[in-house]
Amino acid sequence: MIRILGIDPGSVTTGYGIIESEGSRLRHIAHGIIRCTSPSTLPQRLGEIYRTIHELIETYQPDHAAIEKVFVKKNVDSALKLGQARGAAICAVNQSMEGMRGSFYEYSPTQIKKTLVGYGRAEKQQMQRMVTTLLGLTVSPQQDAADALSCAICHAHHYGNAALMMANSYQLA
Amino acid sequence: MIRILGIDPGSVTTGYGIIESEGSRLRHIAHGIIRCTSPSTLPQRLGEIYRTIHELIETYQPDHAAIEKVFVKKNVDSALKLGQARGAAICAVNQSMEGMRGSFYEYSPTQIKKTLVGYGRAEKQQMQRMVTTLLGLTVSPQQDAADALSCAICHAHHYGNAALMMANSYQLA
Repeated sequence: MIRILGIDPGSVTTGYGIIESEGSRLRHIAHGIIRCTSPSTLPQRLGEIYRTIHELIETYQPDHAAIEKVFVKKNVDSALKLGQARGAAICAVNQSMEGMRGSFYEYSPTQIKKTLVGYGRAEKQQMQRMVTTLLGLTVSPQQDAADALSCAICHAHHYGNAALMMANSYQLA
Repeated sequence: MIRILGIDPGSVTTGYGIIESEGSRLRHIAHGIIRCTSPSTLPQRLGEIYRTIHELIETYQPDHAAIEKVFVKKNVDSALKLGQARGAAICAVNQSMEGMRGSFYEYSPTQIKKTLVGYGRAEKQQMQRMVTTLLGLTVSPQQDAADALSCAICHAHHYGNAALMMANSYQLA
């Protein structure tokens, strides 16, 4: 049995989701959104991401963390902001999972979509419904939380397949 | 007297510089480069930035930290990477200077250049020479370290000017 933390970082909201996987069985543990409220400064926003992820790791003790690989298509300014949020999230995983047996995994949006619905160009709503079904939830999670849960589910499916695992793993610092 | 840590984050090398400022007098304390060697993974590279900055703050106990504001002109991929490095640096300042009286400042390249050489479009080499002269160094620091020292010197010049300070300060998380 492994416990997986999925993270979907963003400059405005960062989604997270925690699941357990045992063989082909998935269990939902928690999910939510880290929202950076408007008047806060850049260090405060990044601090919010860092601290919340640190607390989630302390609370739920995940074995692995998985994050979505990004291919930014928008402008350089949004890429910079997204990068800052990702940097904060990865540092939190680094510092909080240090010394644990855990490591860090990245999956591309296409890999995640293929794994969950068998189709690399699936739409957001389709993914959201699939997450809801796979985890037996009664209410659909918000978009960013659903994305984080998708990433965790993708990792759960790859777990046990050594070659796939290797290709997406990143040793923690 | 204040002690200032200047940081110039980058995805390949991150420069740092520590100075002391008392009235119009500047004193060089330390400077250097955090180099992310090639085979390392993204979490390892960001971890290197985070840990080194944390150690610098532990060792030198700066009162303030200053970072260069970025205006990325290159592609979205480099903006994302730079963002990740910045996110790691800012998180390290956040976590390590927490509870200290310090806070965090950002200056634009134009402000830094104007402050140091009186001209917003000064060239890199001109800035490097000015840093060397102002701090009475016998050897010019490497480019990224010189940029970090420039940022610290810019903050030292603004210190004491409440209006300028306010415009560039960011409360830590």
